[in-house]
Amino acid sequence: MLVVMTTHATPEQVADVCTAIGHLGFEARPMPGGQRTAIGVVGNDRRVEDSTIAGLPGVAEVIHVSSPYKQVSREWKPESTVITLDNGVQIGGDAVVVMAGPCAVEGPEKLLEVAGIVADAGGVILRGGAYKPRTSPYSFQGLGPEGLKILAEARKAYGLAVITEAIDQESADAVAEVADIIQIGARNMQNFALLKHVGKLGRPVMLKRGMSATVKEWLLAAEYVLSAGNEQVILCERGIRSFDSATRNVMDITAVALARTLTHLPIIADPSHATGRRDMVPPVARASVAAGADGVMVETHPRPSEAFSDGPQALYPDQLKKLMGELGVISGALGRPLATLPKR
Amino acid sequence: MLVVMTTHATPEQVADVCTAIGHLGFEARPMPGGQRTAIGVVGNDRRVEDSTIAGLPGVAEVIHVSSPYKQVSREWKPESTVITLDNGVQIGGDAVVVMAGPCAVEGPEKLLEVAGIVADAGGVILRGGAYKPRTSPYSFQGLGPEGLKILAEARKAYGLAVITEAIDQESADAVAEVADIIQIGARNMQNFALLKHVGKLGRPVMLKRGMSATVKEWLLAAEYVLSAGNEQVILCERGIRSFDSATRNVMDITAVALARTLTHLPIIADPSHATGRRDMVPPVARASVAAGADGVMVETHPRPSEAFSDGPQALYPDQLKKLMGELGVISGALGRPLATLPKR
Amino acid sequence: MLVVMTTHATPEQVADVCTAIGHLGFEARPMPGGQRTAIGVVGNDRRVEDSTIAGLPGVAEVIHVSSPYKQVSREWKPESTVITLDNGVQIGGDAVVVMAGPCAVEGPEKLLEVAGIVADAGGVILRGGAYKPRTSPYSFQGLGPEGLKILAEARKAYGLAVITEAIDQESADAVAEVADIIQIGARNMQNFALLKHVGKLGRPVMLKRGMSATVKEWLLAAEYVLSAGNEQVILCERGIRSFDSATRNVMDITAVALARTLTHLPIIADPSHATGRRDMVPPVARASVAAGADGVMVETHPRPSEAFSDGPQALYPDQLKKLMGELGVISGALGRPLATLPKR
Amino acid sequence: MLVVMTTHATPEQVADVCTAIGHLGFEARPMPGGQRTAIGVVGNDRRVEDSTIAGLPGVAEVIHVSSPYKQVSREWKPESTVITLDNGVQIGGDAVVVMAGPCAVEGPEKLLEVAGIVADAGGVILRGGAYKPRTSPYSFQGLGPEGLKILAEARKAYGLAVITEAIDQESADAVAEVADIIQIGARNMQNFALLKHVGKLGRPVMLKRGMSATVKEWLLAAEYVLSAGNEQVILCERGIRSFDSATRNVMDITAVALARTLTHLPIIADPSHATGRRDMVPPVARASVAAGADGVMVETHPRPSEAFSDGPQALYPDQLKKLMGELGVISGALGRPLATLPKR
Repeated sequence: MLVVMTTHATPEQVADVCTAIGHLGFEARPMPGGQRTAIGVVGNDRRVEDSTIAGLPGVAEVIHVSSPYKQVSREWKPESTVITLDNGVQIGGDAVVVMAGPCAVEGPEKLLEVAGIVADAGGVILRGGAYKPRTSPYSFQGLGPEGLKILAEARKAYGLAVITEAIDQESADAVAEVADIIQIGARNMQNFALLKHVGKLGRPVMLKRGMSATVKEWLLAAEYVLSAGNEQVILCERGIRSFDSATRNVMDITAVALARTLTHLPIIADPSHATGRRDMVPPVARASVAAGADGVMVETHPRPSEAFSDGPQALYPDQLKKLMGELGVISGALGRPLATLPKR
Repeated sequence: MLVVMTTHATPEQVADVCTAIGHLGFEARPMPGGQRTAIGVVGNDRRVEDSTIAGLPGVAEVIHVSSPYKQVSREWKPESTVITLDNGVQIGGDAVVVMAGPCAVEGPEKLLEVAGIVADAGGVILRGGAYKPRTSPYSFQGLGPEGLKILAEARKAYGLAVITEAIDQESADAVAEVADIIQIGARNMQNFALLKHVGKLGRPVMLKRGMSATVKEWLLAAEYVLSAGNEQVILCERGIRSFDSATRNVMDITAVALARTLTHLPIIADPSHATGRRDMVPPVARASVAAGADGVMVETHPRPSEAFSDGPQALYPDQLKKLMGELGVISGALGRPLATLPKR
Repeated sequence: MLVVMTTHATPEQVADVCTAIGHLGFEARPMPGGQRTAIGVVGNDRRVEDSTIAGLPGVAEVIHVSSPYKQVSREWKPESTVITLDNGVQIGGDAVVVMAGPCAVEGPEKLLEVAGIVADAGGVILRGGAYKPRTSPYSFQGLGPEGLKILAEARKAYGLAVITEAIDQESADAVAEVADIIQIGARNMQNFALLKHVGKLGRPVMLKRGMSATVKEWLLAAEYVLSAGNEQVILCERGIRSFDSATRNVMDITAVALARTLTHLPIIADPSHATGRRDMVPPVARASVAAGADGVMVETHPRPSEAFSDGPQALYPDQLKKLMGELGVISGALGRPLATLPKR
Repeated sequence: MLVVMTTHATPEQVADVCTAIGHLGFEARPMPGGQRTAIGVVGNDRRVEDSTIAGLPGVAEVIHVSSPYKQVSREWKPESTVITLDNGVQIGGDAVVVMAGPCAVEGPEKLLEVAGIVADAGGVILRGGAYKPRTSPYSFQGLGPEGLKILAEARKAYGLAVITEAIDQESADAVAEVADIIQIGARNMQNFALLKHVGKLGRPVMLKRGMSATVKEWLLAAEYVLSAGNEQVILCERGIRSFDSATRNVMDITAVALARTLTHLPIIADPSHATGRRDMVPPVARASVAAGADGVMVETHPRPSEAFSDGPQALYPDQLKKLMGELGVISGALGRPLATLPKR
């Protein structure tokens, strides 16, 4: 930590800050400069609460040097975390995974149809929302427990793993019994009570980045899950909010590559929500794999025009198949195969 | 609703869209233009789910004309909502309210001391967090139920109303028993499960705007509470996220004025979280009242350098007193008195 | 300056960085920490080009402590700059100035009519664009030199000072001969060639903040003008770009107050461009004065529906008059009168 | 165009708007809805200036349906524009081009060294700034005309094409005589006077996207160049500004793919400025090609720690070579070769 004093700070003010730092159990090292004095704080292997310092007279700024997160960082654990699902599929290893499915579970026949499409195209994980967090209270909110049952059937029928979203503690408990991965959506990324709760459920968690969360906040949110005892966390970049309405969000492709350097956790890209447009999903999916993503999650629907929600971003089945081929070539060029379903 | 076709859309595609609109129970009105055809949708007094239309061939864009929210809008209810608290203080009426207090409840003596400062300065509502949503799992998370007890004592001692944050359903139940107003924080603005829950608790709710929520999303979040049966909702603008780190957030002062035209709900400004800097709180508080806010919420602390969190933005007691004077003059200039505590 | 090393930086890497700092003519002060070593750079009263350091092995981050700007800062010149125009009006002194007029100069009769409205309402500076930077090449681009002539006539007729925009060096030369203040628009805030040029013209310059410029970049742009020899610079906050399309831009009201602490230059607010909506202009203008602005610039038009550009944000004459009254009361409450035209 | 009336608009107000539309030479088509009336404007194959309508009583909103740009759009010219440089290299055709070089031209020996590195790695266009737009007036501003001479020599020595930035009309004239492509930087994207000027110089122009420009504004800026008579325009995505400081900017990878659908102009990606970090350049460059970019521009330097500016983002020579190999495999997977220098 570094405390920067104002230009006109008096020697007494500098001394007072040094004393305060000492009271916190650290060592203060004043560094006089041409314009102002800065005071280094030595010996803090934990983060110092800066509020006790930042409010003192003469202090201009407090700068934190150490990362605020621990267990999620690559410095803490250099080797990549590999998560093995019940069907044997691994996330975060050599192979690149493709998760696909509809935005929402709409009924048993439809979901089985989609599951077949996904398995046929080479996907290994089925997505589909049973609990839907919707901006408007008047929009379709998902089938709930009924949707989970349908997911469980589709899972059994095709051997696909299943990922679906939890929106509160109750739904998280229900999801944990059925799904291979509990998804925490962007709007709940800083729902800390929920993060702590899923940290205790013993199932892999996929944490979507909040719409305007910094990478640091995202990693700190993941830290909530890890610090509650669950190391099986997958990150998911799904686009951030910007000033431009040309696409729904802005896919932060650099964050995909950056996450791989900052954390040992696997990173998945969601081009469907990042772009909101069917025709943008394939190029952005390809880009994500080229940038080093451990997988992509895309929406697909047999007849997108009939979808209950987010139809305009769902791929047609033949588009999904074509995309899988392209992803295989690009990941292959980087020395990574596409993950496949184990033989049954 | 308006459906805009692509330039090269065929007459058959236009006809298909009209048919689909008819199937939804509405009337389609094609309007051929120089470059492209647009199709008006007539008869929709509810919002049309656009996904069934937006995915059809030849459709370039779907534009919604009607507001997606209902009960929160001024068109729904032209007269301003006035919320009367147990101590007689009104929010949303003529008088401008000042809410003040520490970021977090830190202990019984300290809170009583702050409550005295607030009452003495002329504030009518005491703020203070018992449950603190913190970005890092390693930061102080609040005193919890113990903090609520302390708030209840301070409330009784000074006749102030109390506002404090709920972070999940359990804490919401606890807060509802003690506080006059349940606060929903920016990070939980789209925690829809929590919104529905507090919609059933029968206590006034103050809904902070999410860090990157549009005004429309904010009003839709409020709509969740109203549609669950609770009309006592207060909006709170607390700054939005931007590209500039010069201050913690960007106070969206226009949103304060805009909210008054779009909704009948009261609107409060929080310059402490919007700016994150003590010296910016007074000018931004003054600006908020000048823009038409129904009140302001500011942080204050007897000794900010000792605060457990957010010390750098807490006003010193004498700063609070001075600010109250300035706010009184400005609100008076606009024909609004400052709210005062009823005689006891 | 502070150089933060990575966690696993070797002692040799630390030593190499210290040597490199020495080669730059500064003193290196290593500060070993619990997680990593930081190295302070002492003796730099000018900004160190960090690229020579930031690229060295083992360096995680380089943090600059001193402000990158000089002459615009309050530390450089504590007393506020007061600019006196030819008609005796002062900007940056005690009095709050109101600049008003149409978006674009549309013809001699219309401008004289507006000038009369402005003078009658109590404004002291007439605005009006002769050169219009427009997003589309097909939009009205202004009357050019003819517009300047019209401005000169209106100036003479009513004793108002005149402000108008320059968009390149040629127009800047022409504007400097006619106008009291040369306006540099938001889109040209980092047109450094133009900034240097107007720095040599010896006329007051009003520099609008770029749509997504940080406060620091804005002050550095002003520094270009000052460093070219012109100290008569006025800053103008006109709203920044955000994710929300509810209003045209987001008025950064805190920046108005912040600028007063960071710089000695006067600061004007432009609520017309910040909001883009006529009904939002009065509340945001009031807020700006309450936050400490030295003046406001608003658009007005006798018949906004006929305006060549930006009609929806122009005030009707009676709205301007009413607003002037409100601004007078608020500025008076803060101990500042409204500026008036000297008797002629 | 569509005019949306307020909920309580009277029939007279609707009639007045229809009359005003008629006066503009268009046909009005009122569409009464459940909540409010909308009025379609038919017959406008040019953009209607909405200010005359938007200010009328009872009007809530004016929505433009047609694209504001013309000549840059794919609807105007369906086939992709291919630009052939003097050395035979084509941009926008089948082959993917790599532009590389230092941020700034630093001297003749150094530039020749870099040019050799670029040619050796397989690059076809040499970049290097002679005129540098810098945020601070105290930073290195480039060698100017001397820098252009050096670029011309390097161009001759290796047969590389040359791209370099112009910052005003004077420098644009000088650049046009020496360079194959005139670069317009992000800060000048809306310097319309400069855009019109380079539109008349008869040389290919590469237009970087402004830091916070929407895709629409970017295309409109390109339209300025085309409408001045120059169809040889290349777009360059270089990252947009966001709330997160984790990387310098946010690479808008979707904009690369989107531009290909909206416009016939070639699109280049600049991962160096988009990320600001050497280790992020290769993954983001790969992603750009995977998303469909017609080329990438990267910074390279023989010894980045000695670079005059932007050293931390410059690739080491061996990194450039390795990246070229990766780009070749990915572009090949999409059926596109890397462009090569013609035999001499």
